[in-house]
Amino acid sequence: MDTQLSNKGEGTMKNIIQDVENNVNWLSQFGAVPSGGITRLLYTKEWFDAQQALKSKFEDIGLDVSFDEVGNLSGRLTGSQYPEQVIMSGSHVDSVVNGGNLDGHFGIIAAYLAIQYLKEKYGTPLRTLEVISLAEEEGSRFPYVFWGSKNLFGLAKKEDVQNIKDGAGVSFTDAMRGLGFNFKQDETAARKDIKAFVELHIEQGSVLENEGNTIGVVNSIVGQRRYNITLKGQANHAGTTPMRYRKDAVYGFSRICTESIAKAEAAGDPLVLTFGKVVPKPNTVNVVPGEVMFTMDCRHTDQAYLKTFTEEIEHDMRAIAKEMGMEIEIDRWMDEAPVPMDPQLVDTLKNICDKEQLNYRVMHSGAGHDAQIFAPRVPTAMLFIPSIKGISHNPAEKTKTEDLVEGVKALTQALYQLAYQD
Amino acid sequence: MDTQLSNKGEGTMKNIIQDVENNVNWLSQFGAVPSGGITRLLYTKEWFDAQQALKSKFEDIGLDVSFDEVGNLSGRLTGSQYPEQVIMSGSHVDSVVNGGNLDGHFGIIAAYLAIQYLKEKYGTPLRTLEVISLAEEEGSRFPYVFWGSKNLFGLAKKEDVQNIKDGAGVSFTDAMRGLGFNFKQDETAARKDIKAFVELHIEQGSVLENEGNTIGVVNSIVGQRRYNITLKGQANHAGTTPMRYRKDAVYGFSRICTESIAKAEAAGDPLVLTFGKVVPKPNTVNVVPGEVMFTMDCRHTDQAYLKTFTEEIEHDMRAIAKEMGMEIEIDRWMDEAPVPMDPQLVDTLKNICDKEQLNYRVMHSGAGHDAQIFAPRVPTAMLFIPSIKGISHNPAEKTKTEDLVEGVKALTQALYQLAYQD
Repeated sequence: MDTQLSNKGEGTMKNIIQDVENNVNWLSQFGAVPSGGITRLLYTKEWFDAQQALKSKFEDIGLDVSFDEVGNLSGRLTGSQYPEQVIMSGSHVDSVVNGGNLDGHFGIIAAYLAIQYLKEKYGTPLRTLEVISLAEEEGSRFPYVFWGSKNLFGLAKKEDVQNIKDGAGVSFTDAMRGLGFNFKQDETAARKDIKAFVELHIEQGSVLENEGNTIGVVNSIVGQRRYNITLKGQANHAGTTPMRYRKDAVYGFSRICTESIAKAEAAGDPLVLTFGKVVPKPNTVNVVPGEVMFTMDCRHTDQAYLKTFTEEIEHDMRAIAKEMGMEIEIDRWMDEAPVPMDPQLVDTLKNICDKEQLNYRVMHSGAGHDAQIFAPRVPTAMLFIPSIKGISHNPAEKTKTEDLVEGVKALTQALYQLAYQD
Repeated sequence: MDTQLSNKGEGTMKNIIQDVENNVNWLSQFGAVPSGGITRLLYTKEWFDAQQALKSKFEDIGLDVSFDEVGNLSGRLTGSQYPEQVIMSGSHVDSVVNGGNLDGHFGIIAAYLAIQYLKEKYGTPLRTLEVISLAEEEGSRFPYVFWGSKNLFGLAKKEDVQNIKDGAGVSFTDAMRGLGFNFKQDETAARKDIKAFVELHIEQGSVLENEGNTIGVVNSIVGQRRYNITLKGQANHAGTTPMRYRKDAVYGFSRICTESIAKAEAAGDPLVLTFGKVVPKPNTVNVVPGEVMFTMDCRHTDQAYLKTFTEEIEHDMRAIAKEMGMEIEIDRWMDEAPVPMDPQLVDTLKNICDKEQLNYRVMHSGAGHDAQIFAPRVPTAMLFIPSIKGISHNPAEKTKTEDLVEGVKALTQALYQLAYQD
C-alpha cells in the first residue's frame, strides 16, 4: 500500500497537489476578509457556512455525517471489524481575527483527503475512521478556548460560558442557540470510542524551515506559565531628579529582562521566555517612569524544569526590586502543565516517516493545540508541516504546496496503519 | 535695610506669612479644577481672568500697569535715578493641564510682594522695578513654548504659530485675537531696558528637600538632547520560536537601557538620562516583540560633555542593535544648549544668602524656565525654593509656607540691592 500511495501520478493520489490546493482555496472562502486573510469566529454565519459546506463534502464521499450538540462536525467511515474503535483526525474550523487559511483548517482538509484516498483505494477499514471539524479552539470571539475538543470529553462546563459575551455584546448562549446548537444534555459525557487521535497542523514556528525538515513528529506540547508583573518605583521629573534619587521602573524592568533572557538563552531549548508586553507609566519622554506593568511568558516541555526556572526568575525579580527600593507584584495567571503525546503513537508516526524516507524531525510544540485536550484521555499525536518564516495568525500564513502534500501523505499512511492494519 | 526686612513681626513684612498664603490662594482660583489643581492655558478665559485680576492688583499698589501686544503683563515702579534701567522679576502665568498652583505663578506673586514691601518701606527705587506676568511658557495648549518671554526679545515668529491649533481645533491666532491681543507690530523688536532679571521658581525636583536647603541659587540651566529611537527586530510566536532564532526588540531595548543608565549613574551629577517612553509592537503577552519605539532624554550643564556622552550612548545602541541583527533608527529631535546664568548676578544672590544666613546651595536647574530665554540677552539669575517630594505638574505640587516666605524674603533682598543701591 505504501508504495502505491506514494507513487506520484499513480493510484488514488494522482491529483493530490490539485486536491490540496483546491480544498485550501475552497475552505478559504468562508470568512474571507479583504486583507486576504480569514475571520471565521465561533457561531458566526461564516463559521456555520463552513461547517455546512464541510458536511456536504463529507457526505459526498459517503461518510456518515453528524453534528454533536455544540456543533462539532464528524464524518465517519465505519470499520468492518472494530467499528467501536475510532481512529480520529482533524482540527478546529474557527480562526483568529484576520488569521491565515491553514491554522486548524488544514488539519480538517488533510484528514478528509486522507480518508477519501483510503476509502477509494482500500474501501472499508477494520476500525472506524473519523474526520472531525472541531467547533472552536482559538478563543477569538468569546473568552473561552478549546470549546470544541473539551466538549468531546465532558470538560466544558455550562457555567463557564453562559455569562460570557463577544465584543459586540452577543452572549455565547444566544450565538450558539441562534444556529440550532445547544449545551450538551449530559455535560460530563465523554467520548469513549476514540482509539487514536492524530492532528495535523502547521508548525506556526520556524524550526522545520530553519532545520530543513518537511515533517515534524510532535512528542510533547509545552507547559506554559504566564505572568502579569507590576514594578512600582517613583515618577519624577526627568530633568530635576539626579540619578541617585531615582526609582526608575523602566530601568528596573530592563535589568530584569536583560538578566532573565540571558538565563533563558543559557538554558537553551526547549525553554522559551518572552517579555511581550511592556506598559510604563506615565510613558512620556520627560518623566522618570514611576511604574511599569509587563508580562512574562515561559514555556518548557518538562513541568519540574518550568517550575524551577520560573521560580528562580521570580526570585531574581524580587531581589532586583528590593535592591532598587521598588515594590513588585507578581501575578501568575496561567500555569498549564506540559502534555506528552502517546509514545507508541509517536513511534508509529516515526516508523512511517522512516519507511517513507520523509525528511522529518521529532519535536515539541511550543503552541497549544486541540491535541493537548485529547492527549491525557486518548492516545494522541501530532504531525507538523513547515510554516514559511514561522508566520501564523496572519494573512501571510503560508506553507509550500509540496509541504502541504507531504503532510497529507504522511497522515494518510498513519491512518492506513491505524485503521486498516490489525 | 536687611535687618529691618528680616525682623519677623516688624516693618512692612510683618504679615508676610499671611500675604504669601492669601496671594497663593487668591491666584489659585483662576483655572481651579475639581482635582484641586489648576488648568490655566494661554488665551483661555481662566488665563484672561488671572491676567486682569493681576493687573488690578498691580494697580492697587500704585504700579504703572500695561499689557504688551501679545498679553505679557507688566507692573512698573519707575526709578528716580535710572528709570531706563529695569530690574525685572516674575514668571509665567499659564499652567499645564491639571497642574499645581506654584509652578510659574508663585514667581509672579513673589515679585509682586517684594515690590510692594520695598515700595512701602523705601518708596521710589533708583532703578525701575518691574513685575512681569509672562503670557506663556508651558506649551500646554498649543505646541509652542516660551511664547511670553520670546516676545520680549523679538524671538517669536508669526509664522511659527499662525498655523497651529489647540486640541479643540481653535487656532492660535483666533484665540489670541479673541481676547484683544495680537502679533507684535514689529516682530523683531526686543526689550533693551532690562538690566537684570531674577526669576523665583519652585525647584520641581527634590535636591533642596533631600539636602535640607531652603534656597537654591541657580547658576545654570541644563542643556537637553531628546531622541525617538526605533529598534526593529522580528515579531514571532512566543511559544514556537526557540531563543536562538529570536530578534526580540524588547530584549534589545532592555540591554540598551541597562547599559546606558549604568553609564549615566557612573558619570554622576549633573548628568541625567531617562528612557521615559517605551512602546513595543505588538505589545501582547504571547508574541516576541518585533519592534520597540522608545525615547531618550539626556541633560547636562556642559554642552561638550552632553554631546560626548550622548554620542557614546548612540554608538553603544548601534553596536547592540548590530550584534543582535536588528535595525535601529535614532532620531535626535531636540538639542538645546545649556544656559549659564550671569556670574555677577549669581554672586549677588549668594552674597545676599550669606548675609541673611540662609540655608542655600548653588545648583543647576534640570528643567527649562523663562530665565533661559532671558539669560543669553540680559543679566539673569534664578532663585529656587523646595518642592515637597519634588512633585510638580500635578495638583500635589506643594512647598512649605516657611519656604515660600524665605523665597520672597530672598527675592526682596535681591531686588533691593539691584534697584535701590547705586
